[in-house]
Amino acid sequence: MSNRDAGFGVDTGPEPAAVRVGLIGCGRIGRMHADIITDDVPGLVLTAVADVVSEASAGVAAATGARASSIEELLAADDVDAVAICSSTDTHVDLVVAAAQAGKAIFCEKPVSLDLAQVDRAVAAVQAAQVPFMIGFNRRFDPGHKSVRDCVAEGGIGDLHVLRITSRDPAPPPPEYVAVSGGIFLDMAIHDFDMVRYVVASDVVEVFARGAVRVDPRIGEAGDVDTAMIMLTHADGTLTSIDLSREAVYGYDQRVEAFGSGGMAVSDNPARHAGWRRTKDATTGEPIPWFFLDRYMESYRAEWRAFHTYLTDGGASPSGIEDARATTAVALAAGRSLREGRPVRVEELG
Amino acid sequence: MSNRDAGFGVDTGPEPAAVRVGLIGCGRIGRMHADIITDDVPGLVLTAVADVVSEASAGVAAATGARASSIEELLAADDVDAVAICSSTDTHVDLVVAAAQAGKAIFCEKPVSLDLAQVDRAVAAVQAAQVPFMIGFNRRFDPGHKSVRDCVAEGGIGDLHVLRITSRDPAPPPPEYVAVSGGIFLDMAIHDFDMVRYVVASDVVEVFARGAVRVDPRIGEAGDVDTAMIMLTHADGTLTSIDLSREAVYGYDQRVEAFGSGGMAVSDNPARHAGWRRTKDATTGEPIPWFFLDRYMESYRAEWRAFHTYLTDGGASPSGIEDARATTAVALAAGRSLREGRPVRVEELG
Amino acid sequence: MSNRDAGFGVDTGPEPAAVRVGLIGCGRIGRMHADIITDDVPGLVLTAVADVVSEASAGVAAATGARASSIEELLAADDVDAVAICSSTDTHVDLVVAAAQAGKAIFCEKPVSLDLAQVDRAVAAVQAAQVPFMIGFNRRFDPGHKSVRDCVAEGGIGDLHVLRITSRDPAPPPPEYVAVSGGIFLDMAIHDFDMVRYVVASDVVEVFARGAVRVDPRIGEAGDVDTAMIMLTHADGTLTSIDLSREAVYGYDQRVEAFGSGGMAVSDNPARHAGWRRTKDATTGEPIPWFFLDRYMESYRAEWRAFHTYLTDGGASPSGIEDARATTAVALAAGRSLREGRPVRVEELG
Amino acid sequence: MSNRDAGFGVDTGPEPAAVRVGLIGCGRIGRMHADIITDDVPGLVLTAVADVVSEASAGVAAATGARASSIEELLAADDVDAVAICSSTDTHVDLVVAAAQAGKAIFCEKPVSLDLAQVDRAVAAVQAAQVPFMIGFNRRFDPGHKSVRDCVAEGGIGDLHVLRITSRDPAPPPPEYVAVSGGIFLDMAIHDFDMVRYVVASDVVEVFARGAVRVDPRIGEAGDVDTAMIMLTHADGTLTSIDLSREAVYGYDQRVEAFGSGGMAVSDNPARHAGWRRTKDATTGEPIPWFFLDRYMESYRAEWRAFHTYLTDGGASPSGIEDARATTAVALAAGRSLREGRPVRVEELG
Repeated sequence: MSNRDAGFGVDTGPEPAAVRVGLIGCGRIGRMHADIITDDVPGLVLTAVADVVSEASAGVAAATGARASSIEELLAADDVDAVAICSSTDTHVDLVVAAAQAGKAIFCEKPVSLDLAQVDRAVAAVQAAQVPFMIGFNRRFDPGHKSVRDCVAEGGIGDLHVLRITSRDPAPPPPEYVAVSGGIFLDMAIHDFDMVRYVVASDVVEVFARGAVRVDPRIGEAGDVDTAMIMLTHADGTLTSIDLSREAVYGYDQRVEAFGSGGMAVSDNPARHAGWRRTKDATTGEPIPWFFLDRYMESYRAEWRAFHTYLTDGGASPSGIEDARATTAVALAAGRSLREGRPVRVEELG
Repeated sequence: MSNRDAGFGVDTGPEPAAVRVGLIGCGRIGRMHADIITDDVPGLVLTAVADVVSEASAGVAAATGARASSIEELLAADDVDAVAICSSTDTHVDLVVAAAQAGKAIFCEKPVSLDLAQVDRAVAAVQAAQVPFMIGFNRRFDPGHKSVRDCVAEGGIGDLHVLRITSRDPAPPPPEYVAVSGGIFLDMAIHDFDMVRYVVASDVVEVFARGAVRVDPRIGEAGDVDTAMIMLTHADGTLTSIDLSREAVYGYDQRVEAFGSGGMAVSDNPARHAGWRRTKDATTGEPIPWFFLDRYMESYRAEWRAFHTYLTDGGASPSGIEDARATTAVALAAGRSLREGRPVRVEELG
Repeated sequence: MSNRDAGFGVDTGPEPAAVRVGLIGCGRIGRMHADIITDDVPGLVLTAVADVVSEASAGVAAATGARASSIEELLAADDVDAVAICSSTDTHVDLVVAAAQAGKAIFCEKPVSLDLAQVDRAVAAVQAAQVPFMIGFNRRFDPGHKSVRDCVAEGGIGDLHVLRITSRDPAPPPPEYVAVSGGIFLDMAIHDFDMVRYVVASDVVEVFARGAVRVDPRIGEAGDVDTAMIMLTHADGTLTSIDLSREAVYGYDQRVEAFGSGGMAVSDNPARHAGWRRTKDATTGEPIPWFFLDRYMESYRAEWRAFHTYLTDGGASPSGIEDARATTAVALAAGRSLREGRPVRVEELG
Repeated sequence: MSNRDAGFGVDTGPEPAAVRVGLIGCGRIGRMHADIITDDVPGLVLTAVADVVSEASAGVAAATGARASSIEELLAADDVDAVAICSSTDTHVDLVVAAAQAGKAIFCEKPVSLDLAQVDRAVAAVQAAQVPFMIGFNRRFDPGHKSVRDCVAEGGIGDLHVLRITSRDPAPPPPEYVAVSGGIFLDMAIHDFDMVRYVVASDVVEVFARGAVRVDPRIGEAGDVDTAMIMLTHADGTLTSIDLSREAVYGYDQRVEAFGSGGMAVSDNPARHAGWRRTKDATTGEPIPWFFLDRYMESYRAEWRAFHTYLTDGGASPSGIEDARATTAVALAAGRSLREGRPVRVEELG
């Protein structure tokens, strides 16, 4: 469906005003968000796009009908109600602060920052300006993962005792990316730490992590591990296990399992489709999705619908600035645990 | 993704010319096709829309950026390369004939007609004009069903011996619809007869059908059955079974199973997502999709991509006018078999 | 567990008397029954075994501790409460009649006879003697199939509308066996016709069958088909489809699906175990069981437990002489339908 | 099948001599082993049984045909080739030493001892006497778990990177049992530590464990936890996660997943049977087995077949005395980690 179905009736009558979005950062993920805002979410209008590379913003503008803009102009524009920050991670905090000071609602891609002090600067700006803020933890909007969280929240499995998460990418990133990524915990597991926060009501108090270089020695040379396991202890005794790999040759393996006094709720990998075969030699099913755009496209759409609802109906952020901070703290604790070979209390991170 | 990504570069340079579509019929299915053409298929441009109800075409025009047009103007327009016929069934043949005579490529929603002589009139017009023609048997483009067909075509299960199809709607149509629908075989099973044709290389030679009114007595009063079973015998001895119901309370049940000398290929129902639960009382999975827009949206998109490829790359139609005729003949034979209580040879239909 | 756990306390006190079984026919299936009676069913004792080949009965006697006997002596023996008839099909009716006249309870392997008049002779003898009779339709005791039947019987899927059965052997029998087997409907589908009877309360009134020789031309030369499809119409409008093959290269494919106004109940094939794998090339599960002893061993044990309960607690036979007759009639109607190319009413068989 | 099929031809001719077993300990697990030896494993003969409670051994003797014996007589008997030690854990080491000194082959139920010095005493006795020894880690013989191990051993998933085990009992033991059990790691996880050893070629070097009392406060009062998570680091960098619970209300949850450079091998829970249902309200499958006798009976049978093969064909023990020692050391390290809140090196245990 085109969002033009929703009427474009901005400010002109009894229709509820659409939310006008200005998007900063026109790389792969920014283009995806621009397409979703344009085509898939009634009530959102993409009015302006900006990128430090002007060709990039021009391309998105041509494709979506938004105007190409400078970042400064976009942040100041009257026809921008909300800013979508999709630029590189090192620019996030400054842009959050500037957008907050401009009184804009903010959607920020994860992570806010690799540095906790920087995250705190963003937290302070958002809280001072009292602007709506949502971080792009899209997996909260995956229908399978959401079914696990909802089951837990509704008491469907009683008291939660154990959470298990498997998070495996289909192929490792280039070593040069690894070197600037912040490491496997901040770059990759940050989504999983948020999933923990999403499902488990009780805070993480201790982190124990182990890791190894098993996939690509150049990842080790870049100072990181490519295979890791993390155990989290929560305040109420709930225990979480996360296993991470930079390379699952069979696809993008993303599973969540919650176990409690009343049973178990699971989010499994979907198959690409429901066809399968039996022959003399084998019983064979479809592979799982290969990468995040296959696996999580529906979650990205739902994320923007949730952002729209949050801005128009109010209520708590679906994934707020405190979630951004808490997941960063756990990721940093995991890194320290790995380096120091001991369980690390989250409160040590300050 | 928006089709604006594809550039709109019609006729202006080295880019391949886009295919410009004029769409007739702006009801539910027409609006869906209009949205897909506009948003989802690079290389297709919706230029004009028409409907006997001018408000309907005006709405689609506003939503898509196409111009509202009369049917006559649309069929004659220079900026219409292909006509999408999405109006009511009784108008299909006249529109096919007119579009063929106008030299347009044709996409026609199923069925062409409930009457074989009328279908033949459309066949003649298309063959005389030698225009590209594709009928909207969208299930051919469902990835699960396609995996069965591809497996059979590639010899993955050896010689085909048996085909089984289950086709169940989630809820019966209103009795007034049933009365004008052409009956369960022409209205509902026509898709299944096409699936048979898609998967099985050997022609159907005999049809035996049985049916009953089990769901809603008003369907019986309207002269139809709501539950049926059909056995097809193919020229090479392959046997097909189709079971039909107007009401599966658990959702839209759509399965295909091909069995042969080398094994079995199956297209099962997908679940809505891959979450599931175990409690003391039950092990519970997700339901299947509820209706055709949930279940087959991806197939509709793939159908339009296939239409674009067919028009630009040539080759045989993905589902041609002969498929439209053959499925109608089988459907009519099924009706005769049910009425007369005997197996009916397809050749009896002429 | 050994049945010796049950105490062997025959006739010696407050313990309930064990049922003493004499078994006739010590071929493969007879030996299996002898082992089950001896080892697996508390309350049954195998006291005597007989076979026209004395080495065969001697072997079973040595293995089980029963005495080797002649058929005549066994039928007259005081320590035989029940006779298990596991000899070749052509001897069944005479042995049923003799056992009934001797006042013994009877367990008879399927089928009673390939000839309806002969079945009627057995029916008459059993009814005249008023002895307990159970025919070995073991699939009724398969826990998956039983779950379908129980669900239907308890109204779990509302009114039954459609039954679908797939019945495929892993490998064809030798042509010489086919020649004396009675044909695919009496030899193989008889189990499926009983499954129909087990699940569907309404009687079969019409049979339509089609078949072909697709697996082995020598089966055709022996006068039979190896691939067949059968459509059954029941008195209340319920429709059943059965597809049969003598060769599924992937194993013993045995499925039942009941569909009704309230939903669907399915008995799928079990995998050999619950291990599976994902690699770059494939997602692979375990094959299904290869043959009936793998697939149905638990059902054979449950069958004997049911026989014991029937004899000790009374009530209706779990699968009585009328089931034996009715399934034979349907099988004969299927053969006639195939030969004459028309639907055949069961009442035509008399 | 009865083992009498195998002929009982002990020492009397060209048949291979049967292995004669004397069984000590006639409680629940001892009776199960006695039945399996008697009924299910050709080549094994149960000749003598003993228990400190003479009624218990008399009962097993009556049920199996073995003679009731004293422990001393059994250990000295000429017609006992192998001793099965199924008595309470605190008697295992003394019986292993005595049986070894008597030159008998030994099958010992797990665990050998809760104390590493005691295990070492058993190791020394077995090594000195050079008698065959097998410990009853039956899960190695579960076909699903075995398929994971075989896949790993054959390189089917490349280099192993991660192992995940879920081990949940259906209901907690009584608190009085917990008090003498040795705790969750020695009593329950010992099987899982052996599964680790079975699947992963590289030794465990470090153990980190966390646990909580979530199921029953009386378990906490008895000094134990009922919910635990363990992370194992192997010498080659492989990482293992085990999650344990004393109560999964939905049944006996036993899963193993191995992940490596070439893919993933999984042993899932089997359902009780392959029946399932869809209704308006739910899609429902069968529960998993409730307890170890349902789930693992086939593994117990296979264990005894493996013991027989080991004794008659030679080769390495399917689960030797070194496996018994290594799993005890890991279990003790887990206990120390839990108490001291730090990762513990296995070598600390000595």
